[in-house]
Amino acid sequence: MDLARSPLALPFPAIPPIDGVTLRIARARYKEWDRCDLTFAELAEGTSVAGVFTKNVCCSSEVELGREQIKGGSARALIVNAGNSNAFTGYRGREAVEQIMGQVADHLGCATNEVFVSSTGVIGVPLPKDKARAGVEAVLDAQPCGWEDATNTIGTTDTFAKGAHASAMIGDTRVEIAGIVKGSGMIAPDMATMLGYIFTDAAVSPAFLQECLSAANRQTFSCITVDSDTSTSDTVLAFATGKAGHAQLTSFDDPGADAFMAALHDVCRELAHLVVRDGEGAQKFIAVHVSGAVSDESARTIGLAIANSPLVKTAIAGGDANWGRVVMAVGKAGEPANRDTLSIGFGGHWAAREGQPVEGYDEAPVAAHLAGQEIDIAVDLGMGDGRASVWTCDLTHGYIDINADYRS
Amino acid sequence: MDLARSPLALPFPAIPPIDGVTLRIARARYKEWDRCDLTFAELAEGTSVAGVFTKNVCCSSEVELGREQIKGGSARALIVNAGNSNAFTGYRGREAVEQIMGQVADHLGCATNEVFVSSTGVIGVPLPKDKARAGVEAVLDAQPCGWEDATNTIGTTDTFAKGAHASAMIGDTRVEIAGIVKGSGMIAPDMATMLGYIFTDAAVSPAFLQECLSAANRQTFSCITVDSDTSTSDTVLAFATGKAGHAQLTSFDDPGADAFMAALHDVCRELAHLVVRDGEGAQKFIAVHVSGAVSDESARTIGLAIANSPLVKTAIAGGDANWGRVVMAVGKAGEPANRDTLSIGFGGHWAAREGQPVEGYDEAPVAAHLAGQEIDIAVDLGMGDGRASVWTCDLTHGYIDINADYRS
Repeated sequence: MDLARSPLALPFPAIPPIDGVTLRIARARYKEWDRCDLTFAELAEGTSVAGVFTKNVCCSSEVELGREQIKGGSARALIVNAGNSNAFTGYRGREAVEQIMGQVADHLGCATNEVFVSSTGVIGVPLPKDKARAGVEAVLDAQPCGWEDATNTIGTTDTFAKGAHASAMIGDTRVEIAGIVKGSGMIAPDMATMLGYIFTDAAVSPAFLQECLSAANRQTFSCITVDSDTSTSDTVLAFATGKAGHAQLTSFDDPGADAFMAALHDVCRELAHLVVRDGEGAQKFIAVHVSGAVSDESARTIGLAIANSPLVKTAIAGGDANWGRVVMAVGKAGEPANRDTLSIGFGGHWAAREGQPVEGYDEAPVAAHLAGQEIDIAVDLGMGDGRASVWTCDLTHGYIDINADYRS
Repeated sequence: MDLARSPLALPFPAIPPIDGVTLRIARARYKEWDRCDLTFAELAEGTSVAGVFTKNVCCSSEVELGREQIKGGSARALIVNAGNSNAFTGYRGREAVEQIMGQVADHLGCATNEVFVSSTGVIGVPLPKDKARAGVEAVLDAQPCGWEDATNTIGTTDTFAKGAHASAMIGDTRVEIAGIVKGSGMIAPDMATMLGYIFTDAAVSPAFLQECLSAANRQTFSCITVDSDTSTSDTVLAFATGKAGHAQLTSFDDPGADAFMAALHDVCRELAHLVVRDGEGAQKFIAVHVSGAVSDESARTIGLAIANSPLVKTAIAGGDANWGRVVMAVGKAGEPANRDTLSIGFGGHWAAREGQPVEGYDEAPVAAHLAGQEIDIAVDLGMGDGRASVWTCDLTHGYIDINADYRS
């Protein structure tokens, strides 16, 4: 199925090279397609690594191995296979991953657990070892490429390439952070996985890199939803080559650590938003801002209940300021809420305040807001200081087209 | 919007009168429509009552009051308003309910807390007291009517009338159980609520009636889902008039109690299935049978994760035996599961056994099964004895049409 470019797509940004990172792509022909589908990022010696992974219990071998590997804290290579997720393939799938790790480690002269592997695509078919072996051989010899080519190569049914960039000053040293991502939850028929990769020339200890990535993840990748479904392979890895040459960051007490954290957070948020913008059938980008909850975590749970509600998402698709459905979604979240202190608004206009419809509520400006592509929903619980923002897209006929009307 | 009759609709069954129950309907004109929208069930003195209610925190005044009223254990009347859910209407909504309770109690010479009120329809508009008063006045004087008329009157955007009947022998006494229900989750724009009412001439103590209803509810109404959204007003009430004249049932030790429980369970399951059959846009009725879980409750949670997954529901809509999406849904449920002991089948055919695709899997009989209207998904966790069945419908363009393309 040819998927039309998302109406919410953004152009690929200018991203500078990251010192210590070399990108290469090749054709492994995991599917019958005429495109590159194997990506190799070679990382300088001394690169720190951190990662966050899907909570899905039926995760892939890649995710199981990755969780173990990041404990070592050190990375020399990333391999991404597109077209086959290698999930639910038992020991045969695991052997294919271990073969790739060994092959790359031999080439680089590094430890196998410094080679990180991700796969994305069809579920239930073991990654073919022969295609993987030939593909890796080709990619090790390939010419270096740029960010956009690598991003297109990790994609499957993505309708546009998704990248982000930020920089930060650590003392007098400017460091760069580049990020690329593919996916939008579970994408098209038989296709799975959000995969995100962040590369920086900053010098960061593995433990602190993990602390920063986990913190950023909680407020970015963990605050987006397309359809509430959780892939078996979701992975975000961060690599810090240290080539910028400043003193290594090891905690928030170090000068420049806050600036680095802020820039990393920016990249993660931008990548997370781009995934939503490529959500299946998305016509509108929806930000849900929850305040007044009893805690930040409670606010996030309530925000996700709203963002996952098919009735809220279809109402927004229809341009309908249906705050009753938002009330319903708040109430079903299972978090502390009080109907009589609850306020709900759209695009800066309150529709209901403290448990009552607003007197003389003028729907015209709200309708104008909802006719646009960028939608804001505000919910104030009136109970405490907890707040969170989550992001999603609307639920449209396009989603049904992609997921029901056609089998890849 | 005129909604087409569901392709999964069943004819309204023959339901005998229940001794001690008199049904009447009238026009309160809660909306601008030419139909009856107020239902009154008069109940004989000595009627026991039990109830289960939505867990939505932002519930209606009717639900708040009903939860308190069932503690009294006694009922003389049920009033159901259609066209206005009276939810999120603050003290004004509560006053309207209390007015109805007082008016009916005065007429019957009973206590106000023996008058149960439900409302279903638009959210955020207080039930108009003048219309309610005139409507109740009219209904108290109306001629008795039958089950199908009453069922049509409690409906809002239901596309067919939903009723069920069973009988049981308690010693030498035959007792009848009648049930009616409206809704399918949150129905059409601004319409909310599943409401179910069960009437029997059996003699049952309030406490035991509650025990039976709660047990039946856990395996029936609590095991269906249309779109994972939870109404602010969901209510199921059971009334036992005692007119059958046998010795009152007070526990499962009483002769006939098991037969009564089985018949009540049958009525609840049939009503629950009918709600799914009127699910928005439903083209297929889906049963998900989970076995081998660590507990029944764990099996139910996993079943609901599958039944609520938009990707599973769209796959079924497209006739796609996409067992990878079922794996994904099992894994995201957060319950104990082991990828390597997991089996998944459709219509009696295993697609994957113990963590591996079945060798030589023949998709033809599975495709034939999925082309039908009644779909079975089987999941075996291979871990324990826990089992559960849940029921849902597919996710189609009809759902989007109803919820996004039109505002009522």
